[in-house]
Amino acid sequence: MTETTPNHTQTVEGWAAMDSNGKIAPFVFKRRENGEDDVTIKILYCGICHTDLHHVKDDWGITMYPIVPGHEITGVITKVGSNATNFKVGDRVGVGCLAATCLECEFCKASEENYCDKVQFTYNGIFWDGSITYGGYSKMLVADKRYVVHVPDSLPLDAAAPLLCAGITVFSPMKYYNMSQPGKKLGVVGLGGLGHVAIKFGKAFGLHVTVISTSPSKEKEAKERLGADDFILSTDPERMEQSGKRSLDYIIDTVAAKHSLGPILELLKVRGTLVLVGAPDKPLDLPSFPLFFGKRNVAGSMIGGMKETQEMMDFCGKHNITCDIELVKPDHINEALDRLARNDVRYRFVIDIDASSDH
Amino acid sequence: MTETTPNHTQTVEGWAAMDSNGKIAPFVFKRRENGEDDVTIKILYCGICHTDLHHVKDDWGITMYPIVPGHEITGVITKVGSNATNFKVGDRVGVGCLAATCLECEFCKASEENYCDKVQFTYNGIFWDGSITYGGYSKMLVADKRYVVHVPDSLPLDAAAPLLCAGITVFSPMKYYNMSQPGKKLGVVGLGGLGHVAIKFGKAFGLHVTVISTSPSKEKEAKERLGADDFILSTDPERMEQSGKRSLDYIIDTVAAKHSLGPILELLKVRGTLVLVGAPDKPLDLPSFPLFFGKRNVAGSMIGGMKETQEMMDFCGKHNITCDIELVKPDHINEALDRLARNDVRYRFVIDIDASSDH
Repeated sequence: MTETTPNHTQTVEGWAAMDSNGKIAPFVFKRRENGEDDVTIKILYCGICHTDLHHVKDDWGITMYPIVPGHEITGVITKVGSNATNFKVGDRVGVGCLAATCLECEFCKASEENYCDKVQFTYNGIFWDGSITYGGYSKMLVADKRYVVHVPDSLPLDAAAPLLCAGITVFSPMKYYNMSQPGKKLGVVGLGGLGHVAIKFGKAFGLHVTVISTSPSKEKEAKERLGADDFILSTDPERMEQSGKRSLDYIIDTVAAKHSLGPILELLKVRGTLVLVGAPDKPLDLPSFPLFFGKRNVAGSMIGGMKETQEMMDFCGKHNITCDIELVKPDHINEALDRLARNDVRYRFVIDIDASSDH
Repeated sequence: MTETTPNHTQTVEGWAAMDSNGKIAPFVFKRRENGEDDVTIKILYCGICHTDLHHVKDDWGITMYPIVPGHEITGVITKVGSNATNFKVGDRVGVGCLAATCLECEFCKASEENYCDKVQFTYNGIFWDGSITYGGYSKMLVADKRYVVHVPDSLPLDAAAPLLCAGITVFSPMKYYNMSQPGKKLGVVGLGGLGHVAIKFGKAFGLHVTVISTSPSKEKEAKERLGADDFILSTDPERMEQSGKRSLDYIIDTVAAKHSLGPILELLKVRGTLVLVGAPDKPLDLPSFPLFFGKRNVAGSMIGGMKETQEMMDFCGKHNITCDIELVKPDHINEALDRLARNDVRYRFVIDIDASSDH
């Protein structure tokens, strides 16, 4: 790598998985010098996304080890390239999933960089200079200005970190599919990192929000803690059929495990849209009849472009939306990943990068 | 049934399956008298839809025997009720899948009767009077005026018959999803009864039409006989990937067998829509990644409302669009169903109801 990346001179302390056993350990590596389009960020917080779990264990067969995960990054700018005029030292900023795109296609031009065919991600990607990208489980990041957003002063940097992935992942389709019409009915399937933010956005948009979950225990917290208006237990076919059928205008399905879309689709009104934002690694079962009989549709959406990520951040600042998090020290990343694999988190782990070691 | 349907006094000759062996045999039954909202139609032609095959064999577990299939019906009006002022004796008309709807819901009011929650179909349905509906494999039909359309004089009644189901099934989503913008690229998956009409509509709308099929032998006929612009063999992953990826604006998927949507979805541009119009009885495999990475969506659509069915008929009259058919005598319905099960038809069987017996 030294040939193609001669300017990777900055030593960074981080945390990486070295192989598919997926265990995270301290890892020292190099980042590039701060270029004229770059900003350097002292990372303060990094969320732990379900995608990190898939990558450290190589569930998708695409992991390049050692892997430094993390794409829900917040911190403070310490260096600014001459072209990065939108930023200054001391700015509170965030970096999400995007590290590089082609800059020339219709999507890049429209700031829908996430759909650029040459998109490279914040970790496990290949940057323009040929280097493998390392993510936010680390103390410092050099990022191209294009993929950096400002975090409003009103938002704490720890609870704002997961907005960079979990937040924009649900915000983008909610805007695109026009789910921001007050009074309309939104269903949120799955109450985890993505689901709990979807509820918050839904309420901020003035929607009636119904949580659909397999866990009866989540009814109370969905309603009392997160402000959901209704709850449907998806393991209760009678309730699904009788009171839920054709009741929702749109659904955000955040479940990352394989599941059948049939009973969920029946909850949608005619012409309703279900947006998948979880990332099940096995194909979902899509029965055709619930699609036909209701002219319904199932859409996919993946994070968001940079312009709308900033728009989401500003919206969160205005409506005081952050994620419900559990802060963990870097020493406890493995424990957090284990608990995340069991869905034992309310609702997002965030690594306190600067926290001192237990030992 | 006599209690609830005292006015079913008219004797009709037809053809029915008596049980799930699915064999069709002559069957004499009763239809209601012509009411004030009804028209009576001397049936001349009836298309054989794939749905008929599923029903006669009870593939979906919902068949009420004896079943008289047929919902692609054309004929001539012989009697007109006092309220059916839009029709007169001698009119050339068609009846599709709809026999009764609630008339009061938002969908009925918008002439989207096909999405009425109380929709009853032309056969194997329950009519307002409680009787089981019998379809177009018969010599005469009494139909409520609402569910009858005029067939333009320029269209032959035999080749127009399948428009009542196959035609509207592809026309409706093409209109709804705005697939009528000249120059845009349409993919048609499967070249059968639905697929061949989709190509014709596509060309009439000024689209570039690509046929996607598992049969190399269909390339020639798709292009030369039906006017398709391009052909992709879906069993050739390299071709699918290299020249097809992100190339199509929309796709109509007419395949009625279980198949994976992943490779097909990759052919769509970002934000592209795939509409399912076949009716696979098993759930389809829907991998989430092709949806995510292209913000694509999979929609379902089922026939169409009456207003748009008439609109389609008029469009077909103007553009001289009919189906490519094979006429069969009533004696040969079983043979036709057997061949249909093997996809051995170009592209739709139509029963010549008045044809004399071979024997």
